[in-house]
Amino acid sequence: MLRKNAIVGQSGGPTSVINASLAGVINGCIKAEEIDRVYGAVYGIEGVLNENIIDLTDKFSNEEELKLLKVTPASYLGSCRRKLKDEFKEIFDVFEKYDIGYFFYIGGNDSMDTVMKLSHYAKDNNIPVKIVGVPKTIDNDLEITDHTPGFGSAAKFVATTIKEIAHDADVYDKTLVTIIETMGRNAGWLTAASALARDGIIDAPHLIYLPEIDFDVEKFIDDIVALSKTRKNIVVVVSEGISDKNGEYILNLYKDTGKDAFGHTMLSGVCGILADIVKKRTGFKVKNVEFNILQRCCSHISSKTDCDEAFEIGTKGVEAALKGETGCMVYFHRTSNSPYACEVKSISIDKTANAVKLVPKEWITKEQNDVTKEFIEYALPLIQGETEITYENGVPKYTVR
Amino acid sequence: MLRKNAIVGQSGGPTSVINASLAGVINGCIKAEEIDRVYGAVYGIEGVLNENIIDLTDKFSNEEELKLLKVTPASYLGSCRRKLKDEFKEIFDVFEKYDIGYFFYIGGNDSMDTVMKLSHYAKDNNIPVKIVGVPKTIDNDLEITDHTPGFGSAAKFVATTIKEIAHDADVYDKTLVTIIETMGRNAGWLTAASALARDGIIDAPHLIYLPEIDFDVEKFIDDIVALSKTRKNIVVVVSEGISDKNGEYILNLYKDTGKDAFGHTMLSGVCGILADIVKKRTGFKVKNVEFNILQRCCSHISSKTDCDEAFEIGTKGVEAALKGETGCMVYFHRTSNSPYACEVKSISIDKTANAVKLVPKEWITKEQNDVTKEFIEYALPLIQGETEITYENGVPKYTVR
Repeated sequence: MLRKNAIVGQSGGPTSVINASLAGVINGCIKAEEIDRVYGAVYGIEGVLNENIIDLTDKFSNEEELKLLKVTPASYLGSCRRKLKDEFKEIFDVFEKYDIGYFFYIGGNDSMDTVMKLSHYAKDNNIPVKIVGVPKTIDNDLEITDHTPGFGSAAKFVATTIKEIAHDADVYDKTLVTIIETMGRNAGWLTAASALARDGIIDAPHLIYLPEIDFDVEKFIDDIVALSKTRKNIVVVVSEGISDKNGEYILNLYKDTGKDAFGHTMLSGVCGILADIVKKRTGFKVKNVEFNILQRCCSHISSKTDCDEAFEIGTKGVEAALKGETGCMVYFHRTSNSPYACEVKSISIDKTANAVKLVPKEWITKEQNDVTKEFIEYALPLIQGETEITYENGVPKYTVR
Repeated sequence: MLRKNAIVGQSGGPTSVINASLAGVINGCIKAEEIDRVYGAVYGIEGVLNENIIDLTDKFSNEEELKLLKVTPASYLGSCRRKLKDEFKEIFDVFEKYDIGYFFYIGGNDSMDTVMKLSHYAKDNNIPVKIVGVPKTIDNDLEITDHTPGFGSAAKFVATTIKEIAHDADVYDKTLVTIIETMGRNAGWLTAASALARDGIIDAPHLIYLPEIDFDVEKFIDDIVALSKTRKNIVVVVSEGISDKNGEYILNLYKDTGKDAFGHTMLSGVCGILADIVKKRTGFKVKNVEFNILQRCCSHISSKTDCDEAFEIGTKGVEAALKGETGCMVYFHRTSNSPYACEVKSISIDKTANAVKLVPKEWITKEQNDVTKEFIEYALPLIQGETEITYENGVPKYTVR
C-alpha cells in the first residue's frame, strides 16, 4: 500500500479539551495502515507556511504520553488566528514536500473557513489531499453540530464555580449582589450553563442575561431590586457580549476596546461596569467576578463526557478522511437525551463555515433573565463525569511540546 | 458528671476549609463526654447576640453529613465582621441561657480579637466558660502558627490555575504578558504560592511581586521588557496589596476604594491598572486575570493536607478546652519539613491577636521579583493531596445550613 503522511494543526482560542481531539487525531493516524507519519503544524496553519513542523508519531505511540496529552489544557501544538488570503500554493507545496495525504484542522468558526478555502483550492487543482475540520470552541456557537467539544468542560467549570461562589456569597447577613461574567461573544451557551449550578438547595444564579436578548440597564436594575425584597444573596450572570437594543455592546457604551484579527470586538470587563452601576443605583454591596480565560483552560475540572467525546471526534475525523471524505467537518448528532447518546457524522464544510448558532429563544424564559428546563435537558449530559488527573507535587501533571 | 453545652461560630472571610474546622469542632464536641449539645451561632458572634442559634448535634452525628460539611466551601454557619465594643454581658447572658461551657470561634486576625476580649471579660467576672480560638485565613498572615488552615487550599488553587493559564498563554507565537492578581492585603503568602505552579517544564510565573517589597512601576516595566528579549509568554503575579515606597497602595494611586468595618482598605483590580500601563508603555498584548473570591471558595481543588489539618485543629481546639484551657488559640507547630510533620499546640490569645506575619525578606530573591527555594520547601507540603468530592449532576455536592 502507498502510505501517505498526515499533518494536524490547532487554531483559534484554546479549550480544556482541544488536546483530547489532537490525541484522537494522532491516535487515529498512528493506528491507520494508510498513514505513515503524523506531523504537527506548530502554531496552526502558520506552522505549515513556516515549515514549523514536528513529528508526533514516536512520542504518542506511547500510551502514557497520549493519555497525558488528552487531559492537558490549551493547544499543545500552539495556535494562530490567521485568516488565509492567497497563500494556498505555498501551503500545498509544503504538503507535497512532506508527502502529506491528510490534513486535519481542529478549530472554531474561523478555522473552518481555512478548511473550506484549502479544500476548494485542492479540488480546483486536483490535489488529492484529504482535508477534514474537527470542531472545537467553548462558545458552542457552531451550527450543524449538536454541541462543540470544549463547551462541556467550560460549562462544568462555570457551573461548579458558580455553585462555590453561591456558598461564599451567602455567608454575611446583608444584601450582596455578585455579578459574574462569562465568555461567549454573541451566543449565550456558557452564560446559560451557569443554571447547571442549581441543585435544589443552591438556587443560584438568580438572574441570567444572555447576549441573545437586548440588554436593558433599567430592567436589569429593576430585576435586582425586585429580588432584593425576598433574598439577600443575589448571584447574577451576564455574558461578556450583552448589547443594547441597537446592537451596541454594553461594554462599548462605556469604554473603547480593540478588535482581533478577524475584526471581532475584544470584550472583557462588562461585569465591572455593571457592578459600578448597581452600586450607585441601589447602594447594595456588589462584587464582580470575571471568569476570564480560566473557563477555557481549567482542565482539572474538565467534563469526562466532553474529554472523551473530543477524543472520539478526532478519531472519527481520521476515519472520515480514510474513507475518502474531504472538505468536510465532523460533528455530533444527538440521538437521545435520556439516556444521552450522540453519534459522530460528517458534513460538507461549505454548509458550516462562519454561521453562528445562538441559544434558541424558546429556551429563554419570558422574563428574559433565565433559561428553561429545555436548556438544562440539553446541557446537563455534557458536563457529566470527571477526568482522571495525575497530581505531581500538588499540581496537575500536563505535557508540553 | 455535670455536662455543659458548647457553641461554635465562624467569623471573617470564608475559606475552602473553614467548614472542615467546624466539622472538627462539632465532632470533638459530639465525642466528648463533658459536652451535651453543640450549638452553632449563625453569622458569628452576631448569632449569639441575636440568639440566632441552631443545634448541630443530631445532624452531624451522622458520619455522611459530617463528611459533606468537611469539604463544603465558605462558612456553613454564616459569618460576620463585627468588632466587639462592650456587648460582653449580653453575650455571656446568652451563654448562660443556653448553659454554654465552651465557646469555639473559628476565624482570622480580627476574630482572635473577639476571643481575647471575651476571655478577658470571663476572667474578670469569674465566668467559667472555656473560650478557644481556631485560626483560619487564606492569607496565612497569623503570627505564632506555622501556617493557617485555608492557606494550603487557596495556594493549591493559585498554583494549579496559574499552571493551566501558563499553558493557555503559550499558544500564540507572539509576546503576551499575563498579569494575575492574588489576594493578600499586606502579606504575600498567596502571591508567593504561585511559584508552586512550576514543574521544571512550566517555568511560569516568571515575575512575582509581593506586598512585602516596595513596588516600583518603572522597575516592573524594566523587568518585563528585559524578559521579553528572551521569551514570548510572560506570566506575572502581583498581590492585590502592592504599594509604593511611601506605603501607598498602587491601586489607590489610581482610584478610590472603600474601607471595610475594620478600617482595612478594600482592594481589587490592581492587575487591570498594571495591564493598562504595560500595554501603553510596551505595546505588548496584555491580559489580566483577577482570581478574586475563587481562591477562597474553590473547594473542588482543595488541598487534602489542608482539609485534614483544618479538621484536626478544630478537634484539638475542643481537646484544649476540655483540659481546662481558655483564652487561647490552637496553632500548628512544624516539627519537620521532609517528611512534613506538624503538631497542634495552644497558646495564650494575648500573645497572638492582631499581629500580621509577613513573608520573610530572606525568602524573597535579591531581584525582589521572585521567591527562594526556602519558600517552596515551606509551602509545598501544604498543597499536597486532593480531597474526595462527590459529584451530583456534574457539579460538586455540598451542604447548607
